[in-house]
Amino acid sequence: MSTIGFIGLGNMGGPMAINLVKAGHTVQIFDLVADSVDKVKAEGGRPAETAAAAVANADVVISMLPASRHVEAVYLGHDGLLEHIGSSTLIIDSSTIAPVTARQVAAAASEKGLMMIDAPVSGGVGGAVGGTLTFMVGGETEALDRARPLLEAMGKNIFHAGQAGAGQVAKVCNNMLLSVLMTGTAEALQLGVNNGLDPAVLSEIMRKSSGGNWALEVYNPYPGVMPGVPASNEYEGGFLVDLMIKDLGLALASALDTSTSTPMGALARSLYVAHGDQGHGQIDFSSIQKMYQRSPK
Amino acid sequence: MSTIGFIGLGNMGGPMAINLVKAGHTVQIFDLVADSVDKVKAEGGRPAETAAAAVANADVVISMLPASRHVEAVYLGHDGLLEHIGSSTLIIDSSTIAPVTARQVAAAASEKGLMMIDAPVSGGVGGAVGGTLTFMVGGETEALDRARPLLEAMGKNIFHAGQAGAGQVAKVCNNMLLSVLMTGTAEALQLGVNNGLDPAVLSEIMRKSSGGNWALEVYNPYPGVMPGVPASNEYEGGFLVDLMIKDLGLALASALDTSTSTPMGALARSLYVAHGDQGHGQIDFSSIQKMYQRSPK
Amino acid sequence: MSTIGFIGLGNMGGPMAINLVKAGHTVQIFDLVADSVDKVKAEGGRPAETAAAAVANADVVISMLPASRHVEAVYLGHDGLLEHIGSSTLIIDSSTIAPVTARQVAAAASEKGLMMIDAPVSGGVGGAVGGTLTFMVGGETEALDRARPLLEAMGKNIFHAGQAGAGQVAKVCNNMLLSVLMTGTAEALQLGVNNGLDPAVLSEIMRKSSGGNWALEVYNPYPGVMPGVPASNEYEGGFLVDLMIKDLGLALASALDTSTSTPMGALARSLYVAHGDQGHGQIDFSSIQKMYQRSPK
Amino acid sequence: MSTIGFIGLGNMGGPMAINLVKAGHTVQIFDLVADSVDKVKAEGGRPAETAAAAVANADVVISMLPASRHVEAVYLGHDGLLEHIGSSTLIIDSSTIAPVTARQVAAAASEKGLMMIDAPVSGGVGGAVGGTLTFMVGGETEALDRARPLLEAMGKNIFHAGQAGAGQVAKVCNNMLLSVLMTGTAEALQLGVNNGLDPAVLSEIMRKSSGGNWALEVYNPYPGVMPGVPASNEYEGGFLVDLMIKDLGLALASALDTSTSTPMGALARSLYVAHGDQGHGQIDFSSIQKMYQRSPK
Repeated sequence: MSTIGFIGLGNMGGPMAINLVKAGHTVQIFDLVADSVDKVKAEGGRPAETAAAAVANADVVISMLPASRHVEAVYLGHDGLLEHIGSSTLIIDSSTIAPVTARQVAAAASEKGLMMIDAPVSGGVGGAVGGTLTFMVGGETEALDRARPLLEAMGKNIFHAGQAGAGQVAKVCNNMLLSVLMTGTAEALQLGVNNGLDPAVLSEIMRKSSGGNWALEVYNPYPGVMPGVPASNEYEGGFLVDLMIKDLGLALASALDTSTSTPMGALARSLYVAHGDQGHGQIDFSSIQKMYQRSPK
Repeated sequence: MSTIGFIGLGNMGGPMAINLVKAGHTVQIFDLVADSVDKVKAEGGRPAETAAAAVANADVVISMLPASRHVEAVYLGHDGLLEHIGSSTLIIDSSTIAPVTARQVAAAASEKGLMMIDAPVSGGVGGAVGGTLTFMVGGETEALDRARPLLEAMGKNIFHAGQAGAGQVAKVCNNMLLSVLMTGTAEALQLGVNNGLDPAVLSEIMRKSSGGNWALEVYNPYPGVMPGVPASNEYEGGFLVDLMIKDLGLALASALDTSTSTPMGALARSLYVAHGDQGHGQIDFSSIQKMYQRSPK
Repeated sequence: MSTIGFIGLGNMGGPMAINLVKAGHTVQIFDLVADSVDKVKAEGGRPAETAAAAVANADVVISMLPASRHVEAVYLGHDGLLEHIGSSTLIIDSSTIAPVTARQVAAAASEKGLMMIDAPVSGGVGGAVGGTLTFMVGGETEALDRARPLLEAMGKNIFHAGQAGAGQVAKVCNNMLLSVLMTGTAEALQLGVNNGLDPAVLSEIMRKSSGGNWALEVYNPYPGVMPGVPASNEYEGGFLVDLMIKDLGLALASALDTSTSTPMGALARSLYVAHGDQGHGQIDFSSIQKMYQRSPK
Repeated sequence: MSTIGFIGLGNMGGPMAINLVKAGHTVQIFDLVADSVDKVKAEGGRPAETAAAAVANADVVISMLPASRHVEAVYLGHDGLLEHIGSSTLIIDSSTIAPVTARQVAAAASEKGLMMIDAPVSGGVGGAVGGTLTFMVGGETEALDRARPLLEAMGKNIFHAGQAGAGQVAKVCNNMLLSVLMTGTAEALQLGVNNGLDPAVLSEIMRKSSGGNWALEVYNPYPGVMPGVPASNEYEGGFLVDLMIKDLGLALASALDTSTSTPMGALARSLYVAHGDQGHGQIDFSSIQKMYQRSPK
């Protein structure tokens, strides 16, 4: 069993830390929000006064933070964690951040002789609670091998995408593609409905044909077609439009950095931003279906 | 066994007619191109002098024609086939045409007391030869039930999309979605590659994640990732860019007719037209990957 | 002075006919809506019982109808006007319709030895009332020369775009470009405002720079920047979103017919359709600015 | 007359510095490229050994650098120019960079009690040589007033866009709009040509109508329509595609920062990147017309 320093106990980080506790590890926890700390403490986490205290003597440090700037602030700088982490400690950053930031922090860690992987996740809060997350990992194979038992305590799929930052790249590529196929699926369904087709019948035809995709399989955006998905629950819960906008921002920033043409992803982002601007930022991203529907006159 | 009048013996219609012959039916064939007729005659088809002669005494008439105007010309008008087809004959049009045209012809047939279904196919020449086509059918259930044994001689999946024209709607919706997910997949792969990822590794990650779709499953657009697909054969064969442009034209014409917003499908169409304009009309549609790649300087 | 048969007396046709009356012509008028006839009759128009009666003995026939199908219905077919119009009569169709329809009707007229031009207008209801319309004309120079004095009674700019249908092509190209620059202008202004700029200051800078365009000159879409435009009057009046959608439909149908790539125009259309679907069809088209603004939370 | 420290003597900076020399100022020059220094020295510029030496005793410091990272490197950091510039010196940065960077550098200058404006230009090399540039200025009015005589020695239009960074915002908004209207104009012209219209006739109609814009006025993208523009010279010279891609990158990064929806600008960027990827990065940006044209088969 390992001693783990866990930084960031929000909607995702909290349940992830709890799963590590349940697996028998000693988990030293830190978050700026007292309430978030209390929830994990109640399950056996050991609160630390500071982030630096949380990582003291840890075999592994895991961070789950909101954005690139938080990761930079926590690890780098004058009193950043890299100054406090022991030389044999493995660092796992599971935040979803810019690939360029992931590479910078990994390089700074490497300069201090520390092993680090980026390991962003997909699967949402449900996956975090259930321990069924997917991890997309960037970094050395040796580091991933060390991390694997802990990742397996929190998730069920682990992909090795490549070197440092590659996990972040894989995640933003996947989510950009997800935004495109969700939007395209909503659009195709609406075109069918506007031509008199039953959305359930059309969904089934396309699912089994060359239009088949993840949305048609498990996350149909048209209300009433598929039980148990956000579309059938007024788009409550699920993966928020605002979070999709965040991930698309990372994808497009990466496209700008590498001078990549991304007409479809960039359009999906603008549609999602416009959708959010209309007041839909805090509902599920499959609600892009609403943008295609006629409002009652 | 039935007597079938089969009009249109091109790359698709020819093998379809041959499969009906092989199933034991009497197939009276007609095409303006002598060579096309000869190929089916060699397998047992019975050439007719005219389209009208081909449909004489037929239990079922099947047509497989290039575009809306051909279907109109063959069935409607002063000496169209509707004037020659017997009242108990079932009509199956497997051409991919505008839903509005399909509805018009079906309505004209209905006025004469004739049963008609639209039954466009997917699966390409390979599916036509192998008898593994997918049929998307619009029309009455009774008519589809009569057609089913013949469709099963030519294909393996039969979907009932709805009333007259619904088969065409389902096909154009599916193919519009296909164009979006193929383009989006090519774009996501290129973004990954431009960020240093291996396209095969990224493909596998997205295939098993929420970016999963038909292209990643069986038709990967990136050269060398998947054996046996057009992308690994210099985009030879497959489903031609020009044919995707045709189908997207039908989808968008239908969007204009119904005042449907189709930002993603319309963009995919414009990208495909620009791609075709650069001289790529006669290669496989997964070659849209080339539009995202940097030409050697 | 001429005898004119004028068919179609709506918001545009009515004032146009009145201007011809005021110029001293004998104007035989017809419309299906009694109220529309009465308004022109009150100014000196001479109501006819039927469209055929309106064109009897006319030197010139002018039509101003809502859409392609109306123009086809009025001129073509068994009892269409082409059967009733005298051989020396000039036909001017000022409806905005599909170029392909304009060419078909002109060809049918030509077969009967009749001269015809397509002469769609821009300038809106204000231009129709004030006699300041712009005409974009397709057809023979000889026909345009005959039409010119009448067009000058209704408008102030007359462009000869080319052969039959060219007037319609010029209009749809212009309006597609207009939709692109209006949308692009709204977007650039919002980007500036979201970065803290004053929209009036930014408008003035771009107007005098390489971003300069008609919208910044006379039709600024940002509320409060320019007095007297729809944007400063809650987008009341002006050129309705629904009419822009109609014109964009004609433009894109023409793009489909000619296999032209139109990524920007197609995207503008989808944005306008989505904007209309949100309940904005009956306000001015510069209201696309609203799509870029954040709704109050 | 002033003593000026001028950093960055490339295609733009070189002629700008020369115009200041010609106006009678003492210009202390620095660039890493010896050849660039020599050209300005030949016109009377006074080479300095280091950037720090160039700004010593200067009344005004002007910089003209390629990108955000160069501006950060020159001004900020341990031995950056802000450490060397006297407290009464005015700083003018004419580089085109990210608004966020401009604000950071201006804030750092302000902390040291230095006045700074961002003053990016438009007008290209021709404008730099001819002293006819347009300056878009962000910063305090007092600072702009001090800068004005120098700006007038280098340009003819000076716009005050707002506070620090506003000059950069105005420039990226303008150039994003420019990319949209150039692309839209090319598209509308191609739609007309594909429908049989003469591009010169259509250009003239749209120029005088609601499609009117800067491209139709002075920079027509269609070959042969307008004499003296890049389109009539095989797209040689002018404003390079690669530079438009750079500016669109800044615009979209700013859109990401402010969560602004920019469907049209983002699409124009992707079209330009794809156009550059096809080998067209080093020709004029009006060459986007080529993307709409059919290649000879």
